[in-house]
Amino acid sequence: MEGCLLVIFGATGDLTYRKLLPALYQLEKKALLAKNFGLVAVARKKISTNTYIQEAQKAVKVHTGEEYEGLVWDRLKQRIHYHQLEFNIDGDYESLKKVLENLDRDIDGEGNRLFYLAVAPEYFSNIAGAIKRMDLYRKNQGWKRLMVEKPFGSDLKSATSLNEALTLAFEEKEIYRVDHYLMKEMVQNLIMIRAANQIFEPTWNREHIDHVQIISTESEGVGRRGEYYDQAGALRDMVQNHMLQMVALAAVDLPGNLTAKNLREEKVRVLQSLIPFKEDSIEEQMVLGQYQGYQQEPGVREESSTETYVALRLFLNHPRWLGVPFYLKTGKGMKDKTARIIIQYKLPMGSCCLGKNKKIEQPNRLRINIQPQEGVVLSFNTKQPGTVDTIRPVTMDFCQNCLIGMNTPEAYEKLLGDAIKGDQTLFTHWEEVEASWKWVDTLIDWRKRHPLEVRNYKKASQGPKEGAELVDREPGRQWL
Amino acid sequence: MEGCLLVIFGATGDLTYRKLLPALYQLEKKALLAKNFGLVAVARKKISTNTYIQEAQKAVKVHTGEEYEGLVWDRLKQRIHYHQLEFNIDGDYESLKKVLENLDRDIDGEGNRLFYLAVAPEYFSNIAGAIKRMDLYRKNQGWKRLMVEKPFGSDLKSATSLNEALTLAFEEKEIYRVDHYLMKEMVQNLIMIRAANQIFEPTWNREHIDHVQIISTESEGVGRRGEYYDQAGALRDMVQNHMLQMVALAAVDLPGNLTAKNLREEKVRVLQSLIPFKEDSIEEQMVLGQYQGYQQEPGVREESSTETYVALRLFLNHPRWLGVPFYLKTGKGMKDKTARIIIQYKLPMGSCCLGKNKKIEQPNRLRINIQPQEGVVLSFNTKQPGTVDTIRPVTMDFCQNCLIGMNTPEAYEKLLGDAIKGDQTLFTHWEEVEASWKWVDTLIDWRKRHPLEVRNYKKASQGPKEGAELVDREPGRQWL
Repeated sequence: MEGCLLVIFGATGDLTYRKLLPALYQLEKKALLAKNFGLVAVARKKISTNTYIQEAQKAVKVHTGEEYEGLVWDRLKQRIHYHQLEFNIDGDYESLKKVLENLDRDIDGEGNRLFYLAVAPEYFSNIAGAIKRMDLYRKNQGWKRLMVEKPFGSDLKSATSLNEALTLAFEEKEIYRVDHYLMKEMVQNLIMIRAANQIFEPTWNREHIDHVQIISTESEGVGRRGEYYDQAGALRDMVQNHMLQMVALAAVDLPGNLTAKNLREEKVRVLQSLIPFKEDSIEEQMVLGQYQGYQQEPGVREESSTETYVALRLFLNHPRWLGVPFYLKTGKGMKDKTARIIIQYKLPMGSCCLGKNKKIEQPNRLRINIQPQEGVVLSFNTKQPGTVDTIRPVTMDFCQNCLIGMNTPEAYEKLLGDAIKGDQTLFTHWEEVEASWKWVDTLIDWRKRHPLEVRNYKKASQGPKEGAELVDREPGRQWL
Repeated sequence: MEGCLLVIFGATGDLTYRKLLPALYQLEKKALLAKNFGLVAVARKKISTNTYIQEAQKAVKVHTGEEYEGLVWDRLKQRIHYHQLEFNIDGDYESLKKVLENLDRDIDGEGNRLFYLAVAPEYFSNIAGAIKRMDLYRKNQGWKRLMVEKPFGSDLKSATSLNEALTLAFEEKEIYRVDHYLMKEMVQNLIMIRAANQIFEPTWNREHIDHVQIISTESEGVGRRGEYYDQAGALRDMVQNHMLQMVALAAVDLPGNLTAKNLREEKVRVLQSLIPFKEDSIEEQMVLGQYQGYQQEPGVREESSTETYVALRLFLNHPRWLGVPFYLKTGKGMKDKTARIIIQYKLPMGSCCLGKNKKIEQPNRLRINIQPQEGVVLSFNTKQPGTVDTIRPVTMDFCQNCLIGMNTPEAYEKLLGDAIKGDQTLFTHWEEVEASWKWVDTLIDWRKRHPLEVRNYKKASQGPKEGAELVDREPGRQWL
C-alpha cells in the first residue's frame, strides 16, 4: 500500500477507538502499512500525543484481546501524532496544515492525504470547507481522499446539502462513503458467486426466482446510541443504507466488464427502479415495530414512536425482477444477531407431474449467510431412498468461516486498505445514496401523513407477528 | 403387494442363490410378501424340495450376514417348492403346470404368475415356447409376467430373435427386462433431482453444460465369468445396457407428465439419437483396453483381444444436446469400484470479466455418486476471503448413505417388488434394447473391419493412458 497521512477527525470518539485504531493495528501487524504512513489524530480534547497514545493503546488492547502484541503496538505508536482542533476555528486548521507538512517531510511522504470524518454530520460542512480553504492538501502532488461514515443525512434534502458541502473540496471520485456492510466477506462474495457460477447466474431472474429475502437482525438494543437512534429509527439507520445496498447487490445486472465503475452504474439502476409503495394496502408492504423497554433506554424520548424493527416487501421496476418481491427485515432487540440473504426459487416443473399425488413441499433455496456464520447453504430435493417418487428436501452447505485458519479480515481493516489503494468498489456512490433516500423519503413521508401503528414486540423475540404475516400471507412463503 | 406364484427357472444358479433368494428373504422380513405368495424353484438338478430349502438357507445366511433371523427364514421356507425340469422336455412342463395349479389352490392364489428366467439365453426360446404351449398360466384369470436378465443378445440380430421368442408367449407390457443399474437409488434419483429442482432442470442442456461423464469401474477382474465375458467384452457387457441406460436418464427430455410410459418413450428417443462414429478419427472416439493378466483368467482364450476397458466419446442428435460430448468409461481390474455421473457446466460469464487477469479455473460440476457412496456433490466458485476477486472452487455435498439408519434397499429386492406390483418404470423396453444394440453394433462391426488396438493396462490402475487422452485432449476437460 502507498504511503499517506491518514487524518482522522473525531480521533477520541467511539468509532476511532473501537474500529479504526484496532484496524490500523492489524494492518501494522500484517506489515501492510507503508514506511511513510502516518496517522494524525485530530479532536477537540486538550491532550498531548503521549496521553492520546496511552488511550489508544488501551482501546487496541481491549479490542484485539489475546492477539495483542506489544511489539506491533510499539511500531504503530511511532506513527501517531495528536492534534487538538476546534472544528470551527480557522487558526487550528492552519497549525494542522503545518503539522501535516512537517510530518510529510519527516517521514519522506508523497503528499497523499486521506481524511476520515469520524464526527457527527453537522461538522462535515465546517471541516470540508476548512480543508479546501486552508489548503490542507498539496495541489498536483499526491492524492487527497475523504472517507465519511453514516449517517449520511436524515433525508434526501439533508443528504444533498451534506454532499454539496463535501463536493466543494472533493470530487466524487475522491469521496469514499463507508457502508461497512459492503466490507463483509459474504456480501462481496454475492457478486462473485453470481459471476463465477454457471449454475446460478442464468437462473438469477424473475423466470426462476420466486422471491428474495434480506434479513439483518441484532439481539442488542440501542445501547449507548439512544439519542441518535431515536431521531433516526431503523428505516434511516439500516434500510436506507445497508439493506438497500444488499438489495442492489442481489438484484444488479452484472456488467459484461465487471469493473467498480460499471457495477456501481448498474447498482444505481436497481436503486432507481425501487417502486414507491401503493398507498392503499400499507400492511402488506411495511410493518414497523418497537421492542418493549425501548422507551426506557437512555437518550430515548418517553413516548417515542421510533421504529426499532422494519419488515418491508418491495418490488423493482427492473426487467430482471418484474413481479418478484424482495422481503426485508431488520430489527434491534431481536432473538439473534444474524444477517443473511435467501433466494427462494420457483417450484420446479416436477411439481405438477411426479404422479401419485406426490408434492414437492419445498422449492430450492440458496441461503447466503453473512454473519455470524459465513457460507452458502443450498437446499434441494431428492428422492427418499426406497420410495418410487417421494421427494424430500436435503441441504448441501459450504461454511466459509468453519475452515481452520480462515481468518476473515475485519471490515474496517479492509475499508482503510481499499481507500489507501484508491479502490472505490465497495464504497457508495452519491447516486446510490440519492436514489436510496428518494425511495426511503417516500416511506417516511407517507408515515407522517398516515400514522402507522408501531407494533410492540418482546425483546429476544422474532419481532411483531404482523411482520411474519407480511411474508406468510403468500402460500409457500415465510421468513427463512 | 399382490399374491402370485414366482417361478424361477435356473433356481440352483448363482443369480438365484446370490441375489433372488436373499431379496425374497428381505421382502419376507419386511412383511411385504402377500399371504398367497409362493415360490416355485425350477432347475435341472434332481433334488428334493427339502434339500433345495437347505441349500437356499445356506445361501441366504451367507448373503444376509449378521442380519439373518431364523424366524424369518422359517416363514419364507414354507412358501418354497422345488420342481425338477429339463428345459426341452414337454412332459416336465406338464407336471410343472400341475404343481402350479395345486399350489394356487392350496394357498388360495389369484392365478398370478411371475416367471423369472435366471438361465442362459439359449434356453429362453425353449422355456417361453413351453410356457405358451403348455399353458403355464391361466387365461383371463390373474396376470402373467416374465422377468429376464442380461445378456439380452450379443448383437441386434440375436437380441431380436430372443425377443421374438419371448413375444410368442408374452406381450411387451408383460416383459420385465432387468437392468440392475436402474435399481440403484442414485440412478433413479437422477430423474427426481432434475424434475424437482428449479436450480438444475432449466440449465440442463447444451446452452449451459459443457459435457457429461458417465463412469463405472470395478476393481475386480472377470472372476468366474471368464468364459461368458470373453465372448462378450465390455462393449456388450456394460456399454450396451448399463452405460447407455445412464446416458438415456441423464439426457432424457422430462415429459410433462412423468409416467413410466412417457419417460420410456423419451428414453427411446435419446437412444435412437446416438450418432454413429465417424470412421476417420477413431482414437478420438473410442479407446479399448485389456488388463494385464486377463488372458490367464479361467475360461479366457489364450490370445484373446476382448476388451475389459472401454472409453467412449459420443454425441446425440438431440435438440437438447447438440454438440455436447458424453464421455463414458467402464473397466474391470481398475483402481476403484465406483460409479458416478458428472455434469460439467460451461465457464460462467464472469470467466471473461473479473478483471486483473483473474481466471476461473474450474467450472461448476455436479457429481452424482451412485456407488459405493451415494450422494450429490456440487463444486462452485466463491471469492477467496480477504481478496478482491480471487476465485477458488469449493464444494458442497450431500451424502445419502452417510445418514444413520438410511438403509438403501438392495436392487433385486426392488425389482422383484416392482414386477409383482406391475411397475415397468425401471425395466428396459424392447425399443430401448433395440436402439442400444443398433448403435453398439456399429461399434462392434467397425472394430471387425478396422482392428483397433487393445491397450494393455496394469491391474488396479486408471486404465490405459489413451483413455485419459480421449478426454483431456480438450482444454478444461479430464476424467473426474
